[in-house]
Amino acid sequence: MKLKTLLIALATTFLSGICLAQTTPPVVKEDFKPSILNQPQQEYPQVNSQGYVRFRIVAPRADSVKVSLGLGGRGGTRLAKSADGSWMGTTEGPMDEGFHYYNININGGKFNDPGAMNYYGSVRWESGIEIPAHDQDFYALKDVPHGNVQQVLFPSPSTATSRRAFVYTPPGYDKKSNKRYPVLYLQHGWGEDETAWSNQGRANLIMDNLIAENKTEPFIIVMTYGMTNEIKFGSGLRNFKVDSFQTVLVDELIPFIDANFRTVAKPSDRAMAGLSMGGMETKSVTLNKPEVFAYYGLLSGGTYAPEDFKDKPQPKLIFLSCGSKERPDGIKSAATALKGAGINAVSYVSENTAHEFLTWRRSLHEMAPLLFKK
Amino acid sequence: MKLKTLLIALATTFLSGICLAQTTPPVVKEDFKPSILNQPQQEYPQVNSQGYVRFRIVAPRADSVKVSLGLGGRGGTRLAKSADGSWMGTTEGPMDEGFHYYNININGGKFNDPGAMNYYGSVRWESGIEIPAHDQDFYALKDVPHGNVQQVLFPSPSTATSRRAFVYTPPGYDKKSNKRYPVLYLQHGWGEDETAWSNQGRANLIMDNLIAENKTEPFIIVMTYGMTNEIKFGSGLRNFKVDSFQTVLVDELIPFIDANFRTVAKPSDRAMAGLSMGGMETKSVTLNKPEVFAYYGLLSGGTYAPEDFKDKPQPKLIFLSCGSKERPDGIKSAATALKGAGINAVSYVSENTAHEFLTWRRSLHEMAPLLFKK
Repeated sequence: MKLKTLLIALATTFLSGICLAQTTPPVVKEDFKPSILNQPQQEYPQVNSQGYVRFRIVAPRADSVKVSLGLGGRGGTRLAKSADGSWMGTTEGPMDEGFHYYNININGGKFNDPGAMNYYGSVRWESGIEIPAHDQDFYALKDVPHGNVQQVLFPSPSTATSRRAFVYTPPGYDKKSNKRYPVLYLQHGWGEDETAWSNQGRANLIMDNLIAENKTEPFIIVMTYGMTNEIKFGSGLRNFKVDSFQTVLVDELIPFIDANFRTVAKPSDRAMAGLSMGGMETKSVTLNKPEVFAYYGLLSGGTYAPEDFKDKPQPKLIFLSCGSKERPDGIKSAATALKGAGINAVSYVSENTAHEFLTWRRSLHEMAPLLFKK
Repeated sequence: MKLKTLLIALATTFLSGICLAQTTPPVVKEDFKPSILNQPQQEYPQVNSQGYVRFRIVAPRADSVKVSLGLGGRGGTRLAKSADGSWMGTTEGPMDEGFHYYNININGGKFNDPGAMNYYGSVRWESGIEIPAHDQDFYALKDVPHGNVQQVLFPSPSTATSRRAFVYTPPGYDKKSNKRYPVLYLQHGWGEDETAWSNQGRANLIMDNLIAENKTEPFIIVMTYGMTNEIKFGSGLRNFKVDSFQTVLVDELIPFIDANFRTVAKPSDRAMAGLSMGGMETKSVTLNKPEVFAYYGLLSGGTYAPEDFKDKPQPKLIFLSCGSKERPDGIKSAATALKGAGINAVSYVSENTAHEFLTWRRSLHEMAPLLFKK
């Protein structure tokens, strides 16, 4: 018995020693708090001050529970069964600041975390989590006048249905009944829909805060479904045809908005921007219909080249952005080339973010003040 | 081998015979179609023309998959593993027409069906399914002028935050810039929130359709969170204190709405109604503040008695409703008693529905034309 105990003790020390030698285990601070995107009264998932995420899933008779969120490329976070039958685990490292989609794999099936709220991404309602960002103040819900986000149903003869759009009207829109506003048409990415920019993007709060600080011209934002999800990711992006969406946007939605909201119904007061695949759409639509929009924004959504404007009217502004973990050099050099050709182009790189929503929140925050300058 | 085959054949016949003798298996029509509330491109869950629901959940290594939906009191629907690793099953009988919440139990854990969209009920985002009702036309999305549903954030000093409400404005609200509208304050039930009436309730489409048929006075509907979910269901309903919510509603939200929308800011043009626990709230608030509202509606949410109005101004209308599978006699006799005391009361019973949203959609459809009659 004594020998056995000694051997175990030695083995334990030895194994610990090996672990320490290989990677120094990070010191994870035990200041975890429920994610601000949890469903009401839900304690998990939790986030600590370093950006680690701790999950807890109740599935007493499950054999394997895995979370898709974790360190990039390492296959997410495997949870371990606790004494109370729940499954718990913490990400191997801190997550990037901002919003992340994720899901849970229970015994081979993909489900959502019952603790978290859901956001439409990857062509499904996914669980969402928010790692507080050091600059989160610009998209926080603050005690300032708020604009409204309204759902409108607009007739779409080309698709033989009523389609949905969300319209942000700035604070005071209902009271200032003679004022007319410019409009930004703002598109989501692949796998997302018209809910993305106000839910995970917080576009309305970003605008409310900018307007309260007098940093931007107040304008209307219109968000509708870009019809991007009929194709499988990766396989068919290049084969995507923008025509159907362009018809809905230009021939149906824009006239509806101009007829039902107090817009300045002129190209000089109309912008289009989109994130990721919404950027691809923006590029196609603006180049196909240069007479409709005057301000173009591609957020992690490609670039324009000077050649694109050979036989076309030049826009008043091109805004190009992406996260520093994407391909910032491409964005910067494209803006330089455009400027070299006499086109007003601005590039913006979001520090320490990837192809995710904090990049796009920051991009909107940077882009808005540049739009509709007289 | 031959003997074994024969024995198996006999046993099968015998067992089938027993089953048939006990209960005649219903003939389930094989005309299943994806539920209209499925997530985009999802084939399951499916509903057939009789109201049976068929589920399919992919969880290859699960040991048990159960759906909370099924025949009342019989514990839902147990799914069986298919050859392809998915779990499938059909409800034992047809479901009531209309909307139902449900969830999936995977190896002891409660999750949502990845095929269905989610709706906030039972203090969580639950899966939702829709059994087409024979009268579904009144809440269908039709080619008629549509009102908008807009999210507003209103200051709430009493709770030290900005709170959310959804506001339905009738078709043409933005164009008829001199017209003022009456307002219905419409509350959700326990476990739900301010999203319920427009998502699962389809309040906006019900109103659009009624207005298109000239069957109701156009009015604004305001929906906010009733603060009902801090107490556990069943245990504390009687201990619920309406005070905090009453302050938010009467002292904060109503003045905000009257200041920011073109309302007729008078008690004679203000109604309050609620479903289930929202009815309890309506009863408390209207009796505490009879000077604020003139029309009261309790949808599966209790009754008023003539004594309630002893020393109080009488409302212009009391609307009481419930499903035929609830306690319709209580609703009817309460209305009779109120009428006997000279109070204008109307009762409505939704046929073949229980404490669920089709009861409340129909109730709104019946109640709306009775409100704000001059």
